[in-house]
Amino acid sequence: MSQRNLTLLTDLYELTMMQGYFKEKDANETVIFDAFYRTNPGGNGYAICAGLEQVIEYIKDLHFEEDDVDYLRSTGLFGEDFLEYLRHFKFSGDIYAIPEGTVVFPREPLVKVIAPIMEAQLVETALLNIINHQSLIATKAARVVYAAGGDGVMEFGLRRAQGPDAGIYGARAAMIAGCIGTSNVLCGKMFGVPVKGTHAHSWIMSFPDELTAFRTYARLYPSACILLVDTYDTLKSGVPNAIKVFQEMKEAKIPLTFYGIRLDSGDLAYLSKKAKKMLDDAGFPDAVISASNDLDESLINSLKIQGAAINSWGVGTNLITSKDCPSFGGVYKLAAILDKKSGKFVPKIKLSENAEKITNPGNKCIKRIYSRETGKIIADLICLEGEKYDENNSLLLFDPIETWKKTHLAPNTYHLRDLMVPVFKDGKCVYESPAVMDIQAYCKKELDTLWDESRRLVNPHEVHVDLSNELWHMKNQLLDSYHFSE
Amino acid sequence: MSQRNLTLLTDLYELTMMQGYFKEKDANETVIFDAFYRTNPGGNGYAICAGLEQVIEYIKDLHFEEDDVDYLRSTGLFGEDFLEYLRHFKFSGDIYAIPEGTVVFPREPLVKVIAPIMEAQLVETALLNIINHQSLIATKAARVVYAAGGDGVMEFGLRRAQGPDAGIYGARAAMIAGCIGTSNVLCGKMFGVPVKGTHAHSWIMSFPDELTAFRTYARLYPSACILLVDTYDTLKSGVPNAIKVFQEMKEAKIPLTFYGIRLDSGDLAYLSKKAKKMLDDAGFPDAVISASNDLDESLINSLKIQGAAINSWGVGTNLITSKDCPSFGGVYKLAAILDKKSGKFVPKIKLSENAEKITNPGNKCIKRIYSRETGKIIADLICLEGEKYDENNSLLLFDPIETWKKTHLAPNTYHLRDLMVPVFKDGKCVYESPAVMDIQAYCKKELDTLWDESRRLVNPHEVHVDLSNELWHMKNQLLDSYHFSE
Repeated sequence: MSQRNLTLLTDLYELTMMQGYFKEKDANETVIFDAFYRTNPGGNGYAICAGLEQVIEYIKDLHFEEDDVDYLRSTGLFGEDFLEYLRHFKFSGDIYAIPEGTVVFPREPLVKVIAPIMEAQLVETALLNIINHQSLIATKAARVVYAAGGDGVMEFGLRRAQGPDAGIYGARAAMIAGCIGTSNVLCGKMFGVPVKGTHAHSWIMSFPDELTAFRTYARLYPSACILLVDTYDTLKSGVPNAIKVFQEMKEAKIPLTFYGIRLDSGDLAYLSKKAKKMLDDAGFPDAVISASNDLDESLINSLKIQGAAINSWGVGTNLITSKDCPSFGGVYKLAAILDKKSGKFVPKIKLSENAEKITNPGNKCIKRIYSRETGKIIADLICLEGEKYDENNSLLLFDPIETWKKTHLAPNTYHLRDLMVPVFKDGKCVYESPAVMDIQAYCKKELDTLWDESRRLVNPHEVHVDLSNELWHMKNQLLDSYHFSE
Repeated sequence: MSQRNLTLLTDLYELTMMQGYFKEKDANETVIFDAFYRTNPGGNGYAICAGLEQVIEYIKDLHFEEDDVDYLRSTGLFGEDFLEYLRHFKFSGDIYAIPEGTVVFPREPLVKVIAPIMEAQLVETALLNIINHQSLIATKAARVVYAAGGDGVMEFGLRRAQGPDAGIYGARAAMIAGCIGTSNVLCGKMFGVPVKGTHAHSWIMSFPDELTAFRTYARLYPSACILLVDTYDTLKSGVPNAIKVFQEMKEAKIPLTFYGIRLDSGDLAYLSKKAKKMLDDAGFPDAVISASNDLDESLINSLKIQGAAINSWGVGTNLITSKDCPSFGGVYKLAAILDKKSGKFVPKIKLSENAEKITNPGNKCIKRIYSRETGKIIADLICLEGEKYDENNSLLLFDPIETWKKTHLAPNTYHLRDLMVPVFKDGKCVYESPAVMDIQAYCKKELDTLWDESRRLVNPHEVHVDLSNELWHMKNQLLDSYHFSE
């Protein structure tokens, strides 16, 4: 991503607003924006946040080149003083964020930007674009991996991804959420993740017959010999020819370490069971039976229930586009403006007739509350920065809408963790992104902090995200202060 | 796109197959691959093909840099002889394609690659990725623009797009299909398309009150003054304040050329009608009433039926992700292999139990048949390269599956057009991509060649794509040649 200048990857209104702040306000007014989302995608019980590394690269690289300025001038919307300001633009603010691979819930700030208003405004669009995309795909991949129940899931979607970045960063997100490999070679190179794949129908078709194609492939790649068996007829041609080749390998004393077949069409339940029996009968009970073809978590789930003899899953289109829910509704909302006189943040709120769309004001942080006994998440608490909590005291949680719903945590039964970490301080990056495979290991542990009831694919139990007493009162005071006459 | 080296943007199996061809076959064997799709996305009656310019850039730029070769070596899959070959790799083949913005139908080759098998194989994944994405979004945008019935549609989806490229090239595709502008500044710079936008809720919230925010905006941008009226209360605060500002502008003799309001939440039918009445009553009947908020073609259609007083549409998430159908199922299939002895292409076919998945073999071209009387498309005919047609003769068309369904075109009542044009010859680009706004103008004419029955949003009439007599017989001979014993 860093090879491209993405500074203009923004909505025009960010720039027209910036010029407005520049001309009409104290352009250095410090504000707080929160990036958060309102609903878990695809009916899931949580999301996996992802994309922070690319947000960091984007922020680090922010600068208007001469041809960017020339282009903006050509729109006729911008004055020379503002364009001159852009020429020297760099990000000078603070950013806090939840690390990639963390399990997150609706209404929690995933990223908090504290910066001069012009800077905070500019970064909105690209920041949302990146976080929305990768969090969407990571969440979808977590569902698919969950459905596969321990079998390996490979990400195969590049050709159906919504452009090159969707393929590259979608595969990155899928790896974070637990895929064992991707077909995407560029993603493998960029992020050091395993790349996987064997051959296509065209390989088979380019030889005079299927058996010759299989034999040739086995000779070339004996240690990862997965043969695609459905080019002509899976059970009458593909599987028998594959077995013939495995027998030849056995006779030639070639070690059959990782070998098997791939099914890419037809009734996968039926074909896999038939193929499994043929492979077993021929003395190849440990052959991998890999399946692909428009799979998703529901289909994998259904195939498992049907007893399909598949132990490796290649998932393409439905994962890389998050087909049933192709967008993650992340938004970026103003939460506070610094009052220079008092040095304090004045909270800001966005009203809506829909209670769920009313924003949480102020300078916030998130405390995750774990049970000391089980290590599982009890709830998340959105607080105001600076609130003090002591695990030796009891803690009262209450639902922010239905406030009579209360939970009382006894002292020393829970553990608190701050979810957001500093990423930029005064425009300088203070965070080092972990390697993708390390994020994957972290994400696996994160998923273990959820009860299985919150991980199930349908109607998961919703983890509570509560507001601290202080934040709740601030929010309600602000709400009460708005009145419009009938 | 050309700033990045996308040569490794491919599935691993393309490279393992390439090495297989390199080591085991005549690596210079010339083959033909067709890129086509099987079903129009989202229940539409056609698709708009798009992305060719980016495919051309990708093909032109294909080369393995030293660090690509190093990375491939590190996988342990590739031999030094093959890696040395890659170091000197460049595309040397021919490519034919249907120009961007053309109305296309299922099973028609959108791109045809005639090249040495190794080269043709490598480019599969990126070519499909690019064409699938842009054709998907162009088709979706054509539906949205159709629903808007002449009102302007603006593309506002960058923040919800699946990564930066999805935002940039998605906006490009949306422009091709008739959007009047995009919020995406980088797309505007890269492709010379109009950029649009005004301000967000954060602009309003950053001022002490809404009226001050509106006044400031109107002072800054008097000639494109669309005020966002739903931050606090649309009808009690937003619209009255907007009217106050328009009145002040009028009194100050500032010309109200392009001005109005934007609704971004609530019941758009109700609010727009109420707002329209308030604006009319105040003497502003020509104010633009713009709407956004999770719009798509169905919702726009419904709002129009309800008599919503909206005349400008900002469409984001649902367009940029093609939410109801986020993938375009383009595939890339081997169609023929050149027999060196005879100098003739030997047709190849991929079988499937599903008749629709059986490929069309041979070196093909597409003739579009127009009615001379109406200028509308009668049908498309997939033929073999070299077949001769004469408009002075009659033409018999028949359904390739239900062959008794026949249509007889009388001499000189129809007009034939070859859809595919040469794009690369011997590795050299021979095609110049038009500017995006020129493609938009072409696309508008293309859409006019469809009967309205094929453009409607639900259950459109399907345009026939037939096979020539010669191709039909070749295909059936090939099918008959495969037999697998029970």
